[in-house]
Parts: sequence; C-alpha cells; structure tokens
Amino acid sequence: MGVTGYAGQELLRLLVKHPHASIEYLGSRQVSAPRPLGEIVPTFRSQIPNGLRVEPLEPAGPLEPTQALKRCELIFLALPHGVAMGLVPPMLKKPRMRVIDLSGDFRLTSRQRFTQAYGLKRTAASLLPKAVYGLPEWKRTEIRGARLVANPGCYATATLLGLAPLAKEGLLKSDGLIVDAKSGVTGAGRSLKEELLFPEVNEDLRAYRVNQHQHIPEIEQELAVLRKRTVRITFVPHLVPLNRGLYATLYAPLSKRLSDSRLRALYRKHYEKEPFIRLLPEGSWPSMKSVAGTNQCEIGLASNPKTESAIVVAAIDNLGKGAAGQAVQNMNLLFGLPETLGLG
Amino acid sequence: MGVTGYAGQELLRLLVKHPHASIEYLGSRQVSAPRPLGEIVPTFRSQIPNGLRVEPLEPAGPLEPTQALKRCELIFLALPHGVAMGLVPPMLKKPRMRVIDLSGDFRLTSRQRFTQAYGLKRTAASLLPKAVYGLPEWKRTEIRGARLVANPGCYATATLLGLAPLAKEGLLKSDGLIVDAKSGVTGAGRSLKEELLFPEVNEDLRAYRVNQHQHIPEIEQELAVLRKRTVRITFVPHLVPLNRGLYATLYAPLSKRLSDSRLRALYRKHYEKEPFIRLLPEGSWPSMKSVAGTNQCEIGLASNPKTESAIVVAAIDNLGKGAAGQAVQNMNLLFGLPETLGLG
Amino acid sequence: MGVTGYAGQELLRLLVKHPHASIEYLGSRQVSAPRPLGEIVPTFRSQIPNGLRVEPLEPAGPLEPTQALKRCELIFLALPHGVAMGLVPPMLKKPRMRVIDLSGDFRLTSRQRFTQAYGLKRTAASLLPKAVYGLPEWKRTEIRGARLVANPGCYATATLLGLAPLAKEGLLKSDGLIVDAKSGVTGAGRSLKEELLFPEVNEDLRAYRVNQHQHIPEIEQELAVLRKRTVRITFVPHLVPLNRGLYATLYAPLSKRLSDSRLRALYRKHYEKEPFIRLLPEGSWPSMKSVAGTNQCEIGLASNPKTESAIVVAAIDNLGKGAAGQAVQNMNLLFGLPETLGLG
Amino acid sequence: MGVTGYAGQELLRLLVKHPHASIEYLGSRQVSAPRPLGEIVPTFRSQIPNGLRVEPLEPAGPLEPTQALKRCELIFLALPHGVAMGLVPPMLKKPRMRVIDLSGDFRLTSRQRFTQAYGLKRTAASLLPKAVYGLPEWKRTEIRGARLVANPGCYATATLLGLAPLAKEGLLKSDGLIVDAKSGVTGAGRSLKEELLFPEVNEDLRAYRVNQHQHIPEIEQELAVLRKRTVRITFVPHLVPLNRGLYATLYAPLSKRLSDSRLRALYRKHYEKEPFIRLLPEGSWPSMKSVAGTNQCEIGLASNPKTESAIVVAAIDNLGKGAAGQAVQNMNLLFGLPETLGLG
Repeated sequence: MGVTGYAGQELLRLLVKHPHASIEYLGSRQVSAPRPLGEIVPTFRSQIPNGLRVEPLEPAGPLEPTQALKRCELIFLALPHGVAMGLVPPMLKKPRMRVIDLSGDFRLTSRQRFTQAYGLKRTAASLLPKAVYGLPEWKRTEIRGARLVANPGCYATATLLGLAPLAKEGLLKSDGLIVDAKSGVTGAGRSLKEELLFPEVNEDLRAYRVNQHQHIPEIEQELAVLRKRTVRITFVPHLVPLNRGLYATLYAPLSKRLSDSRLRALYRKHYEKEPFIRLLPEGSWPSMKSVAGTNQCEIGLASNPKTESAIVVAAIDNLGKGAAGQAVQNMNLLFGLPETLGLG
Repeated sequence: MGVTGYAGQELLRLLVKHPHASIEYLGSRQVSAPRPLGEIVPTFRSQIPNGLRVEPLEPAGPLEPTQALKRCELIFLALPHGVAMGLVPPMLKKPRMRVIDLSGDFRLTSRQRFTQAYGLKRTAASLLPKAVYGLPEWKRTEIRGARLVANPGCYATATLLGLAPLAKEGLLKSDGLIVDAKSGVTGAGRSLKEELLFPEVNEDLRAYRVNQHQHIPEIEQELAVLRKRTVRITFVPHLVPLNRGLYATLYAPLSKRLSDSRLRALYRKHYEKEPFIRLLPEGSWPSMKSVAGTNQCEIGLASNPKTESAIVVAAIDNLGKGAAGQAVQNMNLLFGLPETLGLG
Repeated sequence: MGVTGYAGQELLRLLVKHPHASIEYLGSRQVSAPRPLGEIVPTFRSQIPNGLRVEPLEPAGPLEPTQALKRCELIFLALPHGVAMGLVPPMLKKPRMRVIDLSGDFRLTSRQRFTQAYGLKRTAASLLPKAVYGLPEWKRTEIRGARLVANPGCYATATLLGLAPLAKEGLLKSDGLIVDAKSGVTGAGRSLKEELLFPEVNEDLRAYRVNQHQHIPEIEQELAVLRKRTVRITFVPHLVPLNRGLYATLYAPLSKRLSDSRLRALYRKHYEKEPFIRLLPEGSWPSMKSVAGTNQCEIGLASNPKTESAIVVAAIDNLGKGAAGQAVQNMNLLFGLPETLGLG
Repeated sequence: MGVTGYAGQELLRLLVKHPHASIEYLGSRQVSAPRPLGEIVPTFRSQIPNGLRVEPLEPAGPLEPTQALKRCELIFLALPHGVAMGLVPPMLKKPRMRVIDLSGDFRLTSRQRFTQAYGLKRTAASLLPKAVYGLPEWKRTEIRGARLVANPGCYATATLLGLAPLAKEGLLKSDGLIVDAKSGVTGAGRSLKEELLFPEVNEDLRAYRVNQHQHIPEIEQELAVLRKRTVRITFVPHLVPLNRGLYATLYAPLSKRLSDSRLRALYRKHYEKEPFIRLLPEGSWPSMKSVAGTNQCEIGLASNPKTESAIVVAAIDNLGKGAAGQAVQNMNLLFGLPETLGLG
C-alpha cells in the first residue's frame, strides 16, 4: 500500500524480482478506481511486468478487503506518517498476517515523543509493545518472531549503523554527539512543494529542520537501548541535489581515547559477518554512488587525534537500506528466508 | 507583475542593475497582502537590494491602482497566459503608459490560432493591431513606436533568430522544416506538477507536446511575414535536466543548394552588426552554458551536403534572450536608450 | 576485457547476476599488475562480489593467455576502437571460442567507410565476412550461429530499432531522413577530457560532430540492408547532462502517406512479440528514465500531418540496450539460452 | 595570470564589468603562443568582450615582461599552489606594483605548516611578513596598505566568517570545534582527474581528505589570531554534485551558554554593517543558490540547547566570496575604491 511514492516504487521493483514474493495487491491513495500500474507510474511501463493494477485506498484503508488482499500473508505500508496507525489494528486481527510499516507510526515507544515528533495524536498505542524496530543488524532475533515491524527511517538507519558498535561497547558519551547528514531528494518524498521543483533544488544545497527532524527521537531511543543510558544528539540534515543516497558524517565523543586500529577492530568485531555492511579500509570514505541501488551500508572510520572522539561516516541508499531494501531484508527474516535473498 | 515566477525573477534581477530603471511596484498573485520580497523569493535575500515589497495581485489585476503604480511609465507583465488580456486595456488608457507582456496573449494576430493554441477565449482583440511582436533584430522600428509589446516565446525566439535570414531571402521552403528543440526546466515555469519535481526530471529527458506546442503558430506566423508565404513547421520540444537554456536544432530545406560559405555570408549580412547574435565559426556549435545568464543568441551553421538543406543551431538562455533579457532590450528600444544598456 | 570503462563495468554488473555466466577473467589496460577489482573501480566495492581480480592487458592483448583465459568460452571486448582488430584473430583460432566485440572494429563491411569513420587502418579484414552485426531484433538467426558478434553502437541501436520497420516495408525514402540524437555522458566513455569534467557538462547541452559521427555509416549500412536501397541520413548528436540514456528523435520522410493507425499497426506487426521493445500508446513519448538500467527500447510514434513523414522517437539506456545489455542478449542467443535471461 | 582556471575565469568576468578596472594582460600556462581568449575558453565567446588575447606563461612566469604587463598596477595570480612563490618577488620590485595571490603560497606564516599542508618547499619566505591575509571583514585596515594580499581559501573564508565573532569575543573553546563542509565541483579546480568526470560526480557525494585538507592550518592560524589562543578544528570536506557553492556547517563549543538571542546579538554587533554578510532570521538557513554568482556570505545561527555550543551555518559562492569576488573586494580596498564596487 502506497506503491506510487518513491519508497513504494522501489519496494515493488525489489519484490517483482524476489524469488519468493508474489504480488497479490497494490494500493494507492492516488487513484479513485482500479488503474493499470503503468498509467499511474509511467517510468514503470518498461521496468515492471505489465498486468499489475493499482487499487484505490481510502484514507482509512481499502474500502473492503478484496479477495486479493485476503490472500496476502504480508502487507507493506509505505504511506505518509499517521496513516498506518489506523490501518494496522484490523490487519493484525487476521491470524498469521504480518505487517512491515515504512512510516514513523510504530517506531517510537514513547507516546509523548511521537506526538512531539510528528504532530499527530497517538492511536493504536496498544500495538506498540508488539512492534519491533526493524534494524536487522541489531534486532535480528526480535524481528524473526514479529508480526509488526517498524521499518527504520533513512537518517536513523545510517546513523545507528554508524554508531551502534560504539554505543554497544559503552564507549559513546551521552552528550556532544553530532550527526551531520546529507540526503538525496527522493528522501523528501514525492510531494508537491515548490521547494522540491527541479530548478529550486538543482545547483542548491540547504540545511533544514536543524535539530528538529522527526528522526531525532528515533535515533536517541535506539542508541539509549544499546548504550543503556540516555544519549542526546545534535542533528543537522541537508538536502543535496541528487536522487538517491543518504550520507551521515558522525562526530562521536568517546569516553576514552581509541587508536585507529582499536577503533577499526571494534567495528570489525560487530560487522565483519554482516552481509550488508562494508567497512572501508583506512583512508577510504563512503560514496553515495557505491551504495546506490543496493541494500549496502558503507562505513568509513577515523580516530580523531585532536579530541577524544571518532569520526564515523556511513552511507546508504535512502530508498534501499534506508527504506525498501531494509523492508525486504525484514521480510526475509519474518519468513525464515536467507537474509540476502532478492537483495543482491 | 508576476515577480515570483522564473521570468519575473530574472526581470527583476536585470532591472535592479539597469542604470535607467527604477522599480516602483512589484505585484504577484502569490501574496494576499503586501510582503517583503525576500520572504516570498528566498533566493533573492542576498541577490536583490532589500526593502522591496510585493503587492497582491487579484486575478483581474491590482484591486486599486496604488500611487506607486500610477508613477510607472512601463509595466512588465510576466503572468500565465490569459491574464494580460484582462489587464492591458485599462492600463493603456493612461496616456504614455507602455506595456511589455511576456505571455502569449498578444503574439498571435489570428483569433482562431490563439484559441487553438491556448484553449482560451480571445478578449481585448481590439488591441491586437497595436501590439508589436517584440523581436528586436527584425522589428526594431516598429518596437520603438509601440505602446504594447508582445515579448516572444523562448522557443520562438531561438527558432526565428535561427531561420529569419533564410526566410527573408526567400530561400526557405514552405514545407519540411523541422525544429528539434531542447529546453531547461525553468522554461516550464514555476508550477506545482509532479513531473517537474527534482527526482522526476533529474536523469531524465523527454519529448512532450509533439507538434502541439503553443509556440508553433507564433513561429509560423512570423516566418510567413518574413518569407511572404505560408510556412509550416514540424516541432518537437524536449525537456532536459538543467535550469536555464534553450537549444533549437533546425533542419531547413532550401529552395536551392547553398555552399557553406554562401550560407555563412548570408547570415553575416543580416547579423554581423547585431550586438546579441554571435555567429560561430565553421565546425563550432552553440553551447547552452555560453549563453546562460546573457541576452546572447549563438548560432552555428552547416550546409547539408546530403540534401538541399541547411542545419542551423541556435542557443539562448530561455530566461535571458528568451524572456527577461529580451524584455529589457525592448524596454531600451521603447525609451530610446542604447539597446544593450543593462544587458552586458 | 576492458572492465574499467563504463560499458565494461555495466557488463560485469549484468554478468555477475546472470544465472549461466561465470566470470573467469577480467582484463584492463588500466593496470600494470593484477589488482583487486574494488581498488580499480571503487564504486564496485559494495556492488560486486569481492574476490575478483583485474589482469593487465597490453595494447596487443594479455601478454600470455592465462589458465583462466583458456577456460573461457566467450570473451567480451569493451575496448577503444582499433584494439579488437588485433586481438580477435588469435582468439578465434581456439576452437569453439566466441567473441562479442563492443567496439566499432567489426561493424562496417566496407573497408573504406571504416577508415573514414574511425581514422584507423583496416586490419583483420578477413574476419569481416564472419562478423555478425548484433542487433537481435533483426539478426536473430545469424547471431545464433556466429562466432564473432559486432555489438552495435548506442546511437545506431536506437536509430535502427526506430526505423527498421519503415525500412523493411520499403516505406522509408532514401533521402531526407533526419536523426536528432541526445546522449548521456557515459556515452562519451571514461576518457580524461576537459570538456567532460563535471563543471563543464553540468548545466550545458551541446551538439557535436554534426554529420560526422562514426555511427553514421553503421546506420546507413544497416538501413540499406533492410531497405534494399541506399539510405542517407542527416545526423546531429547532442551531449546532455545526465549519466545514462540515449534518445533518438527521428524524422522519416515516407514514400506514401500513412495514417497514425496504419503507422502504429506496422510497428506492432514487427515488434509486438519483442521482449525488449515497448511501443507506447498514442500521445505518449519515451523517457530516458523509464529505460535506465534496463535492456528496453521505448518507441513513440506519430504520423506527421504536415508532411508525408513519420516522427519516431526511440529511447534506450546507452549502457543497456546500447551496449552491455545488448551484449548479454547476444550471449544468450549464442549459447541457446532464453533471450531475456539475466536481463529482467 | 591563470585566466583559464575556474577562479581566473570568474575574476575576468567580474573585472570586465568593473568600472575602474582595465584588462592589460592575460596569462595562462595552457597556451604556448598568444591566442584569442574565446578559443581557449569557449564559454567566454558570448560572455566576454572580444579582442582579448591570452599570453603564454612559463612555469616561472612570462618569459619577458611585455609592455602590457609593464602598464599594470595590479596583478592577480590564480595559479596552482607553489607557482606564485616564484613569481611574486620580481613583481614587487617594481615600485607601486601590487599583487593579489589566490593560491595558498602566502597565507601561512609558519614555514613548517606550509610545507606540511602543501608538500612544497618554502621559498620567498622573506615576503611573508609583508603579505596580508585578505579577509576584508576582519583585516580591512591592513589590506588597505598592503602590496601583497594572500586571498583566503574558499573553505577558510566561509569557516572564518562563520566563527570569527565567537573567536573575537573569546567565547570559542580551543578544542572540539567541528567544521563539516560541502563544496561544489569548481572548488576542485579544472584538473583532469577521472574522479571529476561528470558521470563520476553526478549522483554522488563523498567525503575526502578527512582532517587532512590544506585549509585546516589557515583556519586554525586565523582563529588563533582572533581568539588570542590556539584553536584546533576537526575538518571534514565533502564534494557535492553542483557547480558553485560552499557550505560550512559549524559546531562550535562555547565557554559559556549563550541564548539564541544573545548569540544573534553578538553576530549583529560585528556584522550588521558588513555589505557582504547577511545574517538570516531565526529558523532560516543559508542556501547555496542564494549566494551563487554573488560576493555574499549568508549566515544562519542557532544556540544548541543540548550542549553548551552554537550551530553556525555559512554559505558562499566558492568562486565569488571564496575566490574571485573576494579578490575584487580586496582590489577595491587596495585602491581606495568603494568596497562594493563592481560586486553588486
């Protein structure tokens, strides 16, 4: 549901090639009657097998669950924040139905922080204890048994993958952590705003929502879980003129000085078997282009000799590991499939 | 009026630097009460002197002509097609007031072709005989005495400048003329359409309105005036992922074979004294970047040895010579100023 | 061989995912000793399985055929024009070895036109009768039995696919055909020229090699085969600021008037079963983005009411159907595999 | 000298419009004999008055000072690092000759830091005491009397303008200062490197020279002068896919907590009369597009409630205030002209 947005489109691209997935239903709030997919998303006409249809989705969900929908074992929700809260409770009443929600609706355990972050009234709060934050590298076991996965935000994914080893080892200080993040324009969604028109974005770069972005509480919550202590971050996102990619340059004050080789060893320990994380050698730094179209996260590291801190740089494709790719990785976990299936 | 659109913005950028222009009034349909310019067009805050205010403009014009407006001797209209028709008649009632209209409202002498091209009902038709088509290189004398100038469209400007010497000399055949044109995205205006969002345009190129673009009758009308015979064109415009620039690749069947040097001599005869036209030497072809930010038109030429025809390539900045620059050139003519003033 | 160029890179990306391909050897003239692939092409480090090595390739080929090379049944050559001529003759001496050459070395049957087009002395001419021009939609049978496939140029692929039905039916006139083509920058290869630096290309568009491009004889040769008569084209290529994609806007004079529906029926007859050609409905035109990353060719059509001619627009990914994708399609044909294998 | 590089080109663009400048001589190491400017820099052909010639410049300077050069009162050097050291000493022997050097040759007072930063042997060290660091907002008086101006680097300009008020007031801590900077591609110069080709940069973003960039000692030196104490910075530059612009996101630990309004008042005190600095209102952040083509620096501010620190964001055009614009501003100061002349 939500196949016409950028995350929904990418999800469909991955699922049609996935050996164990079969598309039974596509829903969108952009249509008012069933329509051929290629008419609604013209770039799909040569990229996606023909014959798929998009069903209308009322604000509160499909008017009536179609036969197709009844056949589904898993529903992906790629809808604006605030919509999934209303849709998920009835869905989960069906036995064995699972949901992966790409919005922010089930990521935050605190009702108050949710309302602050999204400006929305909290509903379906009774489902929160069941929702698992879907960052496979750190929640693999919990995800396997889940019925509702809250797929992480793109900024949160890159930042958490970049900082989790330091947090987990208790090396991350509680304060002074700086996240300077850069996002491609699909990260802003497919929304009609003047500031997202081509001539406005092209040849520009701007900071926005400085220290106010809705991914901040999500990052702080998950770092605190790993760190077992409150962590507070300074977060400045920037919009950059390219389509896909998310780059997080992380300045992490440490509780003790770490040499470059110790720092690197620590990351290797946690990540060397992870199929979707690539630690770059000394002096190499991530590039957005290397991860574009993949589910990979590239990480570059340097101990900062000037202060007791580390510089960690993490890059992902905001639509890949930052949204649709990670959702498919979560699907693989939910159904006991090899985690990399359909993602390579 | 219309200062928030891309042509209006460029016009203001030129006028604040023009030694004989003084800005008395700025109007826009985007505001409902007077607002500081820098709030409405943020990129202006560091580019344009502060203190300017934008006045609201009702669909039918300013509710009441302010004192400021009364002081004006010239009004530029950079509004969507169909608006100027309603605004101009009362304006021209004021003695000595002059108007330069950047829309298509007063370009076509035929009522029928206007309605076909724009899908609008013709009004203010009585003004048509007074309106001068503002292509200075070919209408200098008429423009000097005009009160109403219909500033040409961007595609029309490049195409006409590229073909006028052949038309004027009677060498252009009436049929078979092909205009393959490429426009930067500001040419589509500052309108909220999904297809103009950055991620849609970036890394794409598409033909659109094939043989149906509203600049076709304008080009055919003016070529016919020069050629003294009907001329019909095939016109395919393309949208390309860059901000500014318009490129017309013209394939012109000729009534007799012309050698490369004869062709070049013919263009030199008409253009060598033109300050805003640059004939490129043999083997050189226009580039959009060379004319960006200028009022120049670059023209490259080749006789086509394979058919009795010429290849003419013309490039302009769609917001410069294709809109605001040409409007200022017309202003200079209207007021007896040096034609290049404020444009170099 | 030639894995570090843009076509070579794309070929590798496709082959590592192809269910029947196994990479035995990678060669490049960019290395002087064997090197890990990820060091030579950094963007591959997260996109291509690790462990691959690039071997040095002397101008005349690998110094000594390694064991790896001996195991190969097929060699792809993605090298600059003029290199394959020297490499192929010894390769084909090995029984059952097959070669797909992505350069222009074996595309032209006329020695004279080859020398004119590429400015190179013709060698290995004795192989020309064995080389098959690898455009599967029109040469399927010949390709199946070939040992040497000359993979078509990108401009030639789009132009030929766009015009072949008209040529085959004898409807294309011999003269007056115009090809206005637009290419993304990877089409210019990965060569160190000032004019290809980012700040030069970005925000620019330029025509180049007007009526002099080396793909002209290739297009004229193949159209003549289909048309059974000489065909001459006017060809103007343009460089546009995007990475991937090739757009051919074709203006084709016809020997008789064809209605829009007759024109469309004719194309359907030839193409409706082709898996990699998509005829767009009336009023729809190809977009580069739709075919990017695919082996598809989108075709849009209109009968031109103003002259006895057709407007045909064809778009491909210059690295997909215009190079590496088509090479894999040819590989599938050579080895009796399903033609779409690894390309969807 | 160095008119063919990006900074040299921009300088010429500004100088031809400057009411008090007259171009007597243009030199470049790209030509071996005098050549018309438009042949060497094709984009100039429609942007710059014709008739200018480029003279060859040997690595050690012009072979013989031409008459033209003898007429000059000021020489701009826009050459690679290490060249000006050899050229300047003989130039300054001519009475009243002045030099503005855009390279790093005369910016660092410490010989050791120079050699570390640029990997070059220090020569012409006797001139260092005479060289003035050309940041007009903080060195106006010294510049007025100088004969040799070391024009600041682009990263240094944005960073210093952003931090100087805090440093001057003694509020900046000596350690923990983070500079996360983003540069358009002209900042990398017009050098033939594979990594700067359009297809490599487009759709990419990468960090480079992390904590090793040659502007670090320049920033630390000038902050120390203002702060009257050593200051150490962490500096991570990023390359972003746009032509012009430099963005510095600065995270500045403070020696005491400052409210948002106190912070803002402090910047107003230092900058409100500066013609080229624009303090943005609360909640507004700089954009690269707003300063492109100008000599402006936009600054956005926020007190960071989470740590005792400030977030300062500064944006300039790397070729404007970051190079050529600032050089012209310095020229105006050297010759007693209004500081904004030719820059608005």
